[in-house]
Amino acid sequence: MASGNSTPHLTVESLNPKVLKCEYAVRGEIVSLAQKLQQDLQANPGSHPFEEILYCNIGNPQSLGQQPITFFREVLALCDHPNILDKSETHGLFSADSIERVWQILDQIPGRATGAYSHSQGIKGLRDTIAAGIEARDGFPADPNDIFLTDGASPAVLIRSENDGIFCPIPQYPLYSASIALHGGTLQHIMIFSGSLYYLDEATGWGLEISELKKQLETARQKGITVRALVVINPGNPTGQVLAEENQRDIVEFCKKEGLVLLADEVYQENIYVPEKQFHSFKKVSRSMGYGDKDIPLVSFQSVSKGYYGECGKRGGYMEVTGFSPEVREQIYKVASVNLCSNISGQILASLVMSPPNVGDESYESYFAEKDGIVQSLARLAKTLEDGLNNLEGVTCNKAEGAMYLFPRIRLPNKAIKEAESLKKAPDAYYATRLLNATGIVVVPGSGFGQVPGTWHFRCTILPQEEKIPA
Amino acid sequence: MASGNSTPHLTVESLNPKVLKCEYAVRGEIVSLAQKLQQDLQANPGSHPFEEILYCNIGNPQSLGQQPITFFREVLALCDHPNILDKSETHGLFSADSIERVWQILDQIPGRATGAYSHSQGIKGLRDTIAAGIEARDGFPADPNDIFLTDGASPAVLIRSENDGIFCPIPQYPLYSASIALHGGTLQHIMIFSGSLYYLDEATGWGLEISELKKQLETARQKGITVRALVVINPGNPTGQVLAEENQRDIVEFCKKEGLVLLADEVYQENIYVPEKQFHSFKKVSRSMGYGDKDIPLVSFQSVSKGYYGECGKRGGYMEVTGFSPEVREQIYKVASVNLCSNISGQILASLVMSPPNVGDESYESYFAEKDGIVQSLARLAKTLEDGLNNLEGVTCNKAEGAMYLFPRIRLPNKAIKEAESLKKAPDAYYATRLLNATGIVVVPGSGFGQVPGTWHFRCTILPQEEKIPA
Repeated sequence: MASGNSTPHLTVESLNPKVLKCEYAVRGEIVSLAQKLQQDLQANPGSHPFEEILYCNIGNPQSLGQQPITFFREVLALCDHPNILDKSETHGLFSADSIERVWQILDQIPGRATGAYSHSQGIKGLRDTIAAGIEARDGFPADPNDIFLTDGASPAVLIRSENDGIFCPIPQYPLYSASIALHGGTLQHIMIFSGSLYYLDEATGWGLEISELKKQLETARQKGITVRALVVINPGNPTGQVLAEENQRDIVEFCKKEGLVLLADEVYQENIYVPEKQFHSFKKVSRSMGYGDKDIPLVSFQSVSKGYYGECGKRGGYMEVTGFSPEVREQIYKVASVNLCSNISGQILASLVMSPPNVGDESYESYFAEKDGIVQSLARLAKTLEDGLNNLEGVTCNKAEGAMYLFPRIRLPNKAIKEAESLKKAPDAYYATRLLNATGIVVVPGSGFGQVPGTWHFRCTILPQEEKIPA
Repeated sequence: MASGNSTPHLTVESLNPKVLKCEYAVRGEIVSLAQKLQQDLQANPGSHPFEEILYCNIGNPQSLGQQPITFFREVLALCDHPNILDKSETHGLFSADSIERVWQILDQIPGRATGAYSHSQGIKGLRDTIAAGIEARDGFPADPNDIFLTDGASPAVLIRSENDGIFCPIPQYPLYSASIALHGGTLQHIMIFSGSLYYLDEATGWGLEISELKKQLETARQKGITVRALVVINPGNPTGQVLAEENQRDIVEFCKKEGLVLLADEVYQENIYVPEKQFHSFKKVSRSMGYGDKDIPLVSFQSVSKGYYGECGKRGGYMEVTGFSPEVREQIYKVASVNLCSNISGQILASLVMSPPNVGDESYESYFAEKDGIVQSLARLAKTLEDGLNNLEGVTCNKAEGAMYLFPRIRLPNKAIKEAESLKKAPDAYYATRLLNATGIVVVPGSGFGQVPGTWHFRCTILPQEEKIPA
């Protein structure tokens, strides 16, 4: 046989370079160290100056003791095992409105088959429910045919080569946010980072300045990069800010003028902690500016992993895709159909978070109490953390308005920066490691999200149990 | 601003060419036509020469009335809503062993949080259960750390450029099978098809001939393609054959000699319909040949969508990854961690299919009756379909040994081929369209899976309800 192309030995060096380049900060080196320390503590209690590891690296509320919303779980359980719906004992165990909701959902599923592949966009009846929820939220029409209950492969649709870029904020949760939220995420996304980004302004509470967008767009174009879309994460991750409506209008206008697709990561839409800010979807903003479906291509991402419910393990979510031509939509549908469909429990849950119990339903009061308890607790924690961080020497932190994170800036002494350099570590990674070793608190170094060169930060979730925070 | 790279108009032409090239036969044009006919029938009953559409295009048993396995659904429902585990009514509604199993599973989940992101490889305790199930199946050790409960992004790890190839059988369910089975599937996979394939031999019951592998490997290498892995689908999709153990040994030897990774799609391991054939995993075969973990890199794919359970909507599955160096495994883990984790219900279900009720458990008898009923029915249907197809003029069909499909060859009159050409359709696509219009039966044209040039086939699932088949 020809020897020139014989199969190389299977080593790291012979793998896909895109894979090797990929780094995912949220579950990187610092988490491995945390897991090691946890094992130490189990084997030798007292071996470290802390009693337990506090995972503030990832927004995973139920792993930290947050209880699921009862109504949602009642519905999911009955959809998994509808055979018991008719039994008398079921009425003793489940609320009347959860049973009623399950009958409605089963009627929406062809053949009532919760174990079948669904339509590639998701079950039509569930999309109807979601569209109704969006209409109720925004006050503008939503079309169930615009809803894709899928994983988020679609941004890749816009990338033709490494010369195409999608404009991402810095700091940012890598565009993965969208795709991970929708339980997808592909290597393809790694290409998205190539060369196009814009900085959020820390001095104005992580503001998104149009002048900065213009400047960076020009720079990208001069480098030969065709910018095709703009990612906005609102509320912000890792930065926790909530955009003002005026600012959102400017962003819509900018995208319209430059012909950019607006990719709106709106998965934290129910995580707002300050009374002076409200969530407005970009679709609502653009419709209220008079732009119709034909005027601006816009994708809004939502996820069941966030919000007050925090159902991270369910891997559900949707994107609402508007303003694309039928031909382009068909391509998005094709990509969705390669994956057949997203998991049905996740689809059902996505419909539930967009249509929770109403006033008058049997579950409403307990549902509201559960929801309110979680939101209030998150708001208190956000404030406590913000204040606590601002009281620390060398740390400043913007206001925690929304999402689940704070992104404080750390000012490190020259000695620490030199020591980090000698260890070939980013100074903030060095800081995070020392913080973990000293306190058991796991945070993510800012370098995983990007930051203005020469500044250092870390991302910290506001999720740990409330009683542990003052410490 | 520089105009050279201004954003192009968002048209199909300006999309990612890999997306445009991608075709997914199983949900393509023929399904759109079927959906249209179904709407016709609803609006105007009697408007077509058939009363209903029979979807034989996709292995989706529960959409055709197959009921889920009760024990599996009991466990899933209680894991979704564990608050009712302690209630007395629960014992009237659920089997004792399902309740016991749920307590075991909850104890395996950190904090009993079924709504949390898990370890990126999947919950450790569930991987223990799966490894034990593999050991019981194969009689050789299995390591829970080799199990990845994830979507199937990993084949992409092997692709460095378009000059790298993964060797796929023709006809084949596009390598998607592996990734879709694991509810992933990325655009990246499209790159996998470039230039490396081998033909299965229809004359010997879709045999996999080593001489053919050698010939095609040489051809690929002469074309400058570095073949890095070999995909084998056993039992076969779309071809329904079950490999003989002797043949499997030859394949293992070939991969060993040529340094290829063996990617074994074994998702139909429980779908065997003839007494003379048995399923042997490639891991069992290679271990029984004396090859240990260090000797041959091997990935085995399993899915909850197939088997007698057919839980397509749950999107669960695993891959067992053996024979890779720690450094390469770390890269696979990294890719898995970008997606955070697969959905927890799917993870739980994957553990259940690998450890169903045992003799003596309260559920065992009803579980066995359900399972046996489904498998026996599938075996009868496979035989009926095979015989029926072989009785049709111009159609020949190999034995239906396993999986969920038949892939009959059709010999078309010249006139039909010419007519197809004038419509710019593949002749088998033309045949499938005519079959649908005349009978309401939906099948997938063979050209979607590949076939020896000049031959024509279609893929037909053996899943429709039994009473409808004779017609």
